[in-house]
Amino acid sequence: MGTQFQVVEQDTTNKSPLLLNSNAIYKKIPVLIHNQKPICESLVIIEYIDETWKNATPILPLDPYEKAVARFWAKFVEEKFTEVMRKVVFTKGEQQEKEVKEAKEAMEVLEGELKGKKFFGGDKIGLVDIVLGWISIWLEIMEETAGVRILDSEKCPWIHKWMHNFIDLSFVKENIPPRDRLVHYYQQIRQNQMSCFLSK
Amino acid sequence: MGTQFQVVEQDTTNKSPLLLNSNAIYKKIPVLIHNQKPICESLVIIEYIDETWKNATPILPLDPYEKAVARFWAKFVEEKFTEVMRKVVFTKGEQQEKEVKEAKEAMEVLEGELKGKKFFGGDKIGLVDIVLGWISIWLEIMEETAGVRILDSEKCPWIHKWMHNFIDLSFVKENIPPRDRLVHYYQQIRQNQMSCFLSK
Repeated sequence: MGTQFQVVEQDTTNKSPLLLNSNAIYKKIPVLIHNQKPICESLVIIEYIDETWKNATPILPLDPYEKAVARFWAKFVEEKFTEVMRKVVFTKGEQQEKEVKEAKEAMEVLEGELKGKKFFGGDKIGLVDIVLGWISIWLEIMEETAGVRILDSEKCPWIHKWMHNFIDLSFVKENIPPRDRLVHYYQQIRQNQMSCFLSK
Repeated sequence: MGTQFQVVEQDTTNKSPLLLNSNAIYKKIPVLIHNQKPICESLVIIEYIDETWKNATPILPLDPYEKAVARFWAKFVEEKFTEVMRKVVFTKGEQQEKEVKEAKEAMEVLEGELKGKKFFGGDKIGLVDIVLGWISIWLEIMEETAGVRILDSEKCPWIHKWMHNFIDLSFVKENIPPRDRLVHYYQQIRQNQMSCFLSK
C-alpha cells in the first residue's frame, strides 16, 4: 500500500508507440510497466502485483489449493463472462441471443459460487472480485446500449448485492469516472466499428 | 520427484461420475485430485503442482517478472495455438483456411520467442514447454488427419528442433502411447461428431 504509480491513458483508436512497443503481441491495454519492463494480460498483471508488493492483504490466498480455486474462477470470469459480454454488445439478432444466453448462464454459475459470501474472496476482495469488478461500473451501461438484460436480481441476488458491496469500497468509489464520460467512451468505441474492443 | 500418483483414464464419450463430479463446470479432462480435492484447468493444475511439490527444478521461474513472462506465453499457447488447432482439425474449407493461417502465425510468434534457446524455459523445460509439449506427439497426426501443414521447418527451425529436444526427454519418451493408439483415439473422436473435443 502507498506504492506510487502513474496512470497513462490510451486512445485505443490511435495507439501510442509506448503501448505498441510494450505489448507488441496483442497491442492491448492494460499494460503494467515496472522497472522499465512491461507486463501484459490482466490476470498476469494481477499475479505480478501480488507477488511483487507483498503486504498484509494478499490478493490471492496463500494456500495452494485455495489459490487454485481462485485462479479457476478468475479464468472462468474472463473466458465465460467477460469475453462473452464483449460479443453481446457488438452482435445482433440470433447471434446476440446466443451470447446473451451464455452470459446469463455464466452469471448464474457465478451466483452459485458467491452464495453466502460478501465477496468471492470471503470478507475481503480477492482475485475473482478484481477480475469481475468491472461489471459494477459497466454492466448497466452495456445492457442499455445493447438493449439486453443480463443480470436478473431475482435469479442472482448475491451477485446483485456483491455489485453494491464492490462499488462501495472506498478505493473503487473514489476512482469511478463520471457516468457521462463512460457512456461517451462507449459510444465512441461503437462508432469506431468496434474494431478496437473486439480485436485481439 | 518420486511422488506417487495414479492415472485414471477417461472415455470422453462416456464420462465417469468421478469426472462429472470433479469438474462440474467444464466436465473436461484433465483433473488432478489431491487430498480428495479436485483441481481443474491445465494451467491451474501446473501452477498447483509447482507450488505444492517444491523441488530443485521448479516449473515456473522464481523471479516475479520472469514468472509473468512465462505465464504470458503459456496463455498465448493455450489461446492462440492450442484452441486454434482444435478448430483447424474440425473445420473445413474457408473456415479451416482462416484457422490454419492463425495457427501458423502463432507458431511463428512462438519461433521468435524460442529463438536461440533449447527450451522456452532455457536449458531446462519450464511452464511454456509443458503447455506446448503436446505438439511433439500430436501435431503430425493432426496435420495428417486434417490434410494441412502447420509447422514449416524452414520458417520455424527452432520449434522444429525443440520438438525433437522435447520428445527426447526420458520422461516424455517413456510415456508416449503407441502411435496406432493415438491415431485410433483421434479417429474415434472425429467419428463422434467432434462434440467432446470441441464442447467447452
